[in-house]
Amino acid sequence: MEQNKKMVSEITSMQDDFAKWYTDIVKKAELVEYSSIRGFMVIRPYGYAIWENIQKAFDTRFKETGHENVYMPMLIPESLLEKEKDHVEGFAPEVAWVTHGGSEKLHERLCIRPTSETLFCEHYANIIHSWRDLPKLYNQWCSVVRWEKTTRPFLRSCEFLWQEGHTIHATAEEAQEETLRMLHIYAEICENVLAIPVVKGKKTEKEKFAGAIDTYTIEAMMHDGKALQSGTTHYFGDGFAKAFGIEYTDKNNKLINPHQTSWGVSTRLIGGIIMTHGDDNGLVLPPKIAPTQVVIIPVAAHKAGVLEKAGELLASLQAAGFRAKLDDSDNSPGWKFAEYEMKGVPLRLEIGPRDIENNQCVLVSRVTGEKTVVPLENLTAETGKALDSIQSALYQKALKNRQDHTYTASTYEELTAVSAETSGFYKTAFCGSRDCEDKVKDDLGLSTRCMPLDEDAPDGAVCAVCGKPATTEIYFGRAY
Amino acid sequence: MEQNKKMVSEITSMQDDFAKWYTDIVKKAELVEYSSIRGFMVIRPYGYAIWENIQKAFDTRFKETGHENVYMPMLIPESLLEKEKDHVEGFAPEVAWVTHGGSEKLHERLCIRPTSETLFCEHYANIIHSWRDLPKLYNQWCSVVRWEKTTRPFLRSCEFLWQEGHTIHATAEEAQEETLRMLHIYAEICENVLAIPVVKGKKTEKEKFAGAIDTYTIEAMMHDGKALQSGTTHYFGDGFAKAFGIEYTDKNNKLINPHQTSWGVSTRLIGGIIMTHGDDNGLVLPPKIAPTQVVIIPVAAHKAGVLEKAGELLASLQAAGFRAKLDDSDNSPGWKFAEYEMKGVPLRLEIGPRDIENNQCVLVSRVTGEKTVVPLENLTAETGKALDSIQSALYQKALKNRQDHTYTASTYEELTAVSAETSGFYKTAFCGSRDCEDKVKDDLGLSTRCMPLDEDAPDGAVCAVCGKPATTEIYFGRAY
Repeated sequence: MEQNKKMVSEITSMQDDFAKWYTDIVKKAELVEYSSIRGFMVIRPYGYAIWENIQKAFDTRFKETGHENVYMPMLIPESLLEKEKDHVEGFAPEVAWVTHGGSEKLHERLCIRPTSETLFCEHYANIIHSWRDLPKLYNQWCSVVRWEKTTRPFLRSCEFLWQEGHTIHATAEEAQEETLRMLHIYAEICENVLAIPVVKGKKTEKEKFAGAIDTYTIEAMMHDGKALQSGTTHYFGDGFAKAFGIEYTDKNNKLINPHQTSWGVSTRLIGGIIMTHGDDNGLVLPPKIAPTQVVIIPVAAHKAGVLEKAGELLASLQAAGFRAKLDDSDNSPGWKFAEYEMKGVPLRLEIGPRDIENNQCVLVSRVTGEKTVVPLENLTAETGKALDSIQSALYQKALKNRQDHTYTASTYEELTAVSAETSGFYKTAFCGSRDCEDKVKDDLGLSTRCMPLDEDAPDGAVCAVCGKPATTEIYFGRAY
Repeated sequence: MEQNKKMVSEITSMQDDFAKWYTDIVKKAELVEYSSIRGFMVIRPYGYAIWENIQKAFDTRFKETGHENVYMPMLIPESLLEKEKDHVEGFAPEVAWVTHGGSEKLHERLCIRPTSETLFCEHYANIIHSWRDLPKLYNQWCSVVRWEKTTRPFLRSCEFLWQEGHTIHATAEEAQEETLRMLHIYAEICENVLAIPVVKGKKTEKEKFAGAIDTYTIEAMMHDGKALQSGTTHYFGDGFAKAFGIEYTDKNNKLINPHQTSWGVSTRLIGGIIMTHGDDNGLVLPPKIAPTQVVIIPVAAHKAGVLEKAGELLASLQAAGFRAKLDDSDNSPGWKFAEYEMKGVPLRLEIGPRDIENNQCVLVSRVTGEKTVVPLENLTAETGKALDSIQSALYQKALKNRQDHTYTASTYEELTAVSAETSGFYKTAFCGSRDCEDKVKDDLGLSTRCMPLDEDAPDGAVCAVCGKPATTEIYFGRAY
């Protein structure tokens, strides 16, 4: 019990210091460890296992929708990065430059990919010639490097793991469809697998990706009311194709520049899971991506038959397809309870001599702390039900948090007042001008998150900032 | 038929020019494409799908044997790389150096990992304190960079994908056991999954990994008789632990340096598959890692009912768990036959109007060209049998090639004569000295491949090079 208390007290409370609470969790739950280079982190087994489960969810959906994985070089020649003007302006200030290979100085600097549009374009120029070669629906899982000034594990780091989809299509319409298709797939996986509700919308001109015509985003609200941009999809038109000389011959023998998209999600999603579902006892993991869904903790494990029965339950849960684990170490049950709470294991199974006598065990939910006595003959069915109910409770809780902290403002005074007093999303009608966006940033410290897809501005609505006719609804917020 | 002939004629024959045959296959089967940086390649969807299947086979076995995946930073500070003397000497000449982050010159150069021993050591020094923290059985899937002078796709490139296992143990014995355990797992997967027979053995002092006490290898013979080092496992003793200050407190409260291993296989294995199984018609893929195991080609596809039936067969093969594909494009059957032969699809299924009348189809083996008429009601069972038989035929064929081209020599004259006339493995008794090894390299252009694990030198045998008493058997060969 001494150890138990100590472990829990090592996590700063959310209310006291949300940033420190976050850092405590990533360290104490053994998700990451720092390395000797600022902004580069070690992803430890537990963190990486979460990432593998996230990868699997996305990769399966990508393949179901016809995408193929490829691997591009890690390095980009400076001249290649510079081919598309907006793109290089956006990324050149934050890339790492390789200048020497072994003892030899290179003729041209190479940067470590911050993203791979330029590499995909070079490749597409080589392999696309005819309308028969289109579309190409490619995706890549890799790590990228961006020399960030301020870094936090998962949320913003100099190196991170991600997937980057890059597709190329015969027509603008097909590429635009793909851009939205992937946005919806991102939202679907965030909501159904990670239990993170998201707002789908379009970025403003100011916030869009370097080189894109349109950028779409899924925005999630963290427990502290701040926004996490959780995935983005970009429509490029034929701008990159023109810059890189990608052309195809259509059915009428005419040369055409194809249209492109790109889209990405990253290990940042792990930060989103922590800040959406975690609590003062530590991490809380949605069952669908938890490396361990059920941890079995024997009580009075020294008594005859307890460990044997615990082993049987483990085998039957695993046989039923659950990711189950038995902790038969000599730590005390109290220490184990705190440990797996901190690690966010969704369901704890307690089994002791009296349970065995009664042919039952106890299931304890990580979310509610609720204990359920379960007859052993119903164990797998009840485990499935309990995990489903935890998955859905996490989503509902996060949705309620967002609803409770989404405020509407119809005037600048309202926006000023409500954003001063609260932390959350602020929804207003908006004229679409850069001036109004900059004013809100300068005065109130709020950035535009997105113009929501499914919500138009009401007829006759006026911009909450300048009072001119509104063209759209928009979400403002404070962002990670 | 015109197209058919053309495609096949584009592959250089093995006999004419093995190196060109290899390059033709990697390009024409669309496994890789070159990028604008020398030695950096694009792995295309078909090549990457093979890699994903290889990864899955290894990753599953790693996890079954208790290993956990992690992710270490991509960059290593120069001072960290320099901590272990032998290691830095081996790798420093071939690393890529990052000198600038954005516009800022870095205080210390960082190299892109050529391998990650130093990063794992730094991490272990942070997280290992007590005997309770041991062992750690970690693995990482990533890309590494080595600035090679001469490069060939998959076989030797400046960047490649691989896995690197890094484990740390309380005792030398445990670490030595792990080193051999992983060697046997490598051999098992090469033989059972990739159908590549391997010789398991120990490297000489000259050929071992920079910083290792012992290096073990699996050596495969390619179709041209040359050796491909296909995977290596290393035992480090406590040398790295001492250099990096990794210590644990044992049960008697004594401070001890733990013992380490590392082991890796890479995309080089794809090169091994090509050069072990391929033929003059192209790639030949073992069914267990083929992205497409069965391709269905409709004959007289315009006739009523043919495409429908082909679709039914596709569905039933997929439902039975086969990776099957239907090519219903408007290319001619002859073109398709050549295309999927080139791509190495193990089994072709032909179905035409007459087959449908007779409620049958034709299976054609990529290895033997043998055609089997199969009643449709037996299709899934016969497909399974045919794939098993192809998998095993490929292994047997490769084993025979190795047996036919493994020569024994008991004197230097014999070794000289046989190695001048043949290409293969040359097995001799060996005294173990560096001088003899160097002499064979200088005189005959042969490198030592390994001292085989399961084969001791006969009593009284003498070294084929110097005539002194032999301590071991050894394989010489020419290597990729």
